Amino acid sequence: MAETSNAATASMAPELQTSGWFNTPRPITLASLRGKVVVLHTFQIFCPGCVQVGIPQAQRIYQEFDPDRVAVIGLHTVFEHHAVMGPDALEVFIHEYRLRFPIGIDKYDGEPKGIPLTMHAYRMQGTPSLVLIDRTGHIRLHKFGHVSDLTIGFSIGTLLSEEIDESSGMAEAIPTGSGGSACDTDGCSV
Amino acid sequence: MAETSNAATASMAPELQTSGWFNTPRPITLASLRGKVVVLHTFQIFCPGCVQVGIPQAQRIYQEFDPDRVAVIGLHTVFEHHAVMGPDALEVFIHEYRLRFPIGIDKYDGEPKGIPLTMHAYRMQGTPSLVLIDRTGHIRLHKFGHVSDLTIGFSIGTLLSEEIDESSGMAEAIPTGSGGSACDTDGCSV
Amino acid sequence: MAETSNAATASMAPELQTSGWFNTPRPITLASLRGKVVVLHTFQIFCPGCVQVGIPQAQRIYQEFDPDRVAVIGLHTVFEHHAVMGPDALEVFIHEYRLRFPIGIDKYDGEPKGIPLTMHAYRMQGTPSLVLIDRTGHIRLHKFGHVSDLTIGFSIGTLLSEEIDESSGMAEAIPTGSGGSACDTDGCSV
Amino acid sequence: MAETSNAATASMAPELQTSGWFNTPRPITLASLRGKVVVLHTFQIFCPGCVQVGIPQAQRIYQEFDPDRVAVIGLHTVFEHHAVMGPDALEVFIHEYRLRFPIGIDKYDGEPKGIPLTMHAYRMQGTPSLVLIDRTGHIRLHKFGHVSDLTIGFSIGTLLSEEIDESSGMAEAIPTGSGGSACDTDGCSV
Repeated sequence: MAETSNAATASMAPELQTSGWFNTPRPITLASLRGKVVVLHTFQIFCPGCVQVGIPQAQRIYQEFDPDRVAVIGLHTVFEHHAVMGPDALEVFIHEYRLRFPIGIDKYDGEPKGIPLTMHAYRMQGTPSLVLIDRTGHIRLHKFGHVSDLTIGFSIGTLLSEEIDESSGMAEAIPTGSGGSACDTDGCSV
Repeated sequence: MAETSNAATASMAPELQTSGWFNTPRPITLASLRGKVVVLHTFQIFCPGCVQVGIPQAQRIYQEFDPDRVAVIGLHTVFEHHAVMGPDALEVFIHEYRLRFPIGIDKYDGEPKGIPLTMHAYRMQGTPSLVLIDRTGHIRLHKFGHVSDLTIGFSIGTLLSEEIDESSGMAEAIPTGSGGSACDTDGCSV
Repeated sequence: MAETSNAATASMAPELQTSGWFNTPRPITLASLRGKVVVLHTFQIFCPGCVQVGIPQAQRIYQEFDPDRVAVIGLHTVFEHHAVMGPDALEVFIHEYRLRFPIGIDKYDGEPKGIPLTMHAYRMQGTPSLVLIDRTGHIRLHKFGHVSDLTIGFSIGTLLSEEIDESSGMAEAIPTGSGGSACDTDGCSV
Repeated sequence: MAETSNAATASMAPELQTSGWFNTPRPITLASLRGKVVVLHTFQIFCPGCVQVGIPQAQRIYQEFDPDRVAVIGLHTVFEHHAVMGPDALEVFIHEYRLRFPIGIDKYDGEPKGIPLTMHAYRMQGTPSLVLIDRTGHIRLHKFGHVSDLTIGFSIGTLLSEEIDESSGMAEAIPTGSGGSACDTDGCSV
């Protein structure tokens, strides 16, 4: 099975770059989700594999797990046919499919065209892609295509069981940037 | 099971009123399909029941039956969220779902708004709707929602087996309009 | 699709040879079903393809069609592991799976061993096998493995639509045996 | 979702009482599986919910997880129709469904009749039942009927992540029986 990668060598998950959200009163950042396991599900509304397999799976995860411990986040990563997959179409899709979990719109550098920014930062291969982020913000599973419910359930169980080292992991979530430092989404270095 | 209605009392199927087509070199009229059984499948691209059940069923029918005897026709009958279900979005949907059968766009009287003309003429209740039209152009099954493969197969088998009375049924397909007559899509009356 | 064979060249369906029945007050013969289309579904209780696909399909057919026009008949054609697929095991299977249509036990020439008599007479390749018999008792579709609901529905619709030639077909169903003649299940010859 | 119970208050899993095994060169005891998470799946070969849902799920678990860490064990707990669900029938079932994981036969106190011993010891409500046993031999999830893949995956991930307290948990797995002790299937206490 696809297993989660080692905590010690995992990369920090790049922050989401979004241009809009549904099903949430305010934009969601990964930084604000530290302490929870994050299930990031990316899709496109005209991607058959997303609509038939990925989205129903995201809904099952959202329904089965406690939102205080597991955050299910959808991300509309449109990398083709941009003209017909804008925010209005996404809104109708979310409404008609009765999706309840927060769904963001991946942002473009300028006009919608090519691969959006978050998708690019994660080097995703396409849609659907699934990213599991641990409670300290590190990417522990990243897969294009179908991932079984057993694997996802197992990974969530594993990540929720990890002890968080307050002196390291959580510190990353509260970066204390200082003047002159080089900062990226992982934190700041002197 | 939902059975086909009696041939003697069936209504003529109103002619399709369309503003565009995919998967066909030229517009398709029901009149041109006389002699074949027509499976008319109406849908909307953001209707979950259509995408998950109706469209795959239409594909199965298209794959199983001889196109010289059974014509599978899709019709995009958009009656809500018109702004995001235009021809461009439909084209992407057809491409991504790899649909091969002819699909028309139900026409509006003016701007896309409310119920389109063909949907209105058939008094359809919503999407998906299935209409089976016999070889003389009469509506023999008309159902909103799910219809089983067994029922559709049975109905096609029944309608293909009917003898066509050349003196009545086929005459409707070859209207011999005369001067001064009032003609509609069903034929012409004096 | 698998289509029904031509009525003119079809073979008469060999009569069922059974050693017991469930879900019927008395043994069923094909001869007694003349005038109906017969759906003969053969299976074994430890055949995964039968239990997962064939049996549920037979149930759907039984539920959708009028029993006065379409007779669904199950036949337990055990050709392996005879010791554990006897009548007692079949009875439990029928009870637990809540099957309601008549199910016969294919008979052996002597002890249960090898291929039973009806299965042999039909030259079936294995289980599940589906046989469609028209209203005059002729085999019109005979297939080993999976047959789609569309195909079965279509075939039933086609066979139910056929006119029965009273001077030939039905005569077979009402054999008027005369002294000294050789009769078989097809009729009687002088 | 159905969550695993607390390790501190969980009961020790009663030892399996079996009269035979398939897919294993020698009988399997829970005691021998200490250190692994055990997925105990109980079923009957004529139980539709087992055949259609439970058994395929057990196969998925067996295929997805490392057998050195997760032991999938089937147990045939026949509590009705004993005459037709004996070892010979079970053997054919295992062969035809191509099951590869070890499957034991729940034992009776005397002749096969009523509820077998392991099923009784676990107070199972019926088949299918799923029992998850942690690495120290404690029951952490016990459910009659369907359990989702997400829940099972999550529970396995959680149980595999638990630290084993050598001074307590593992001690149970390595009972150091002393004279005069009271022993049960869990081990022996002074």
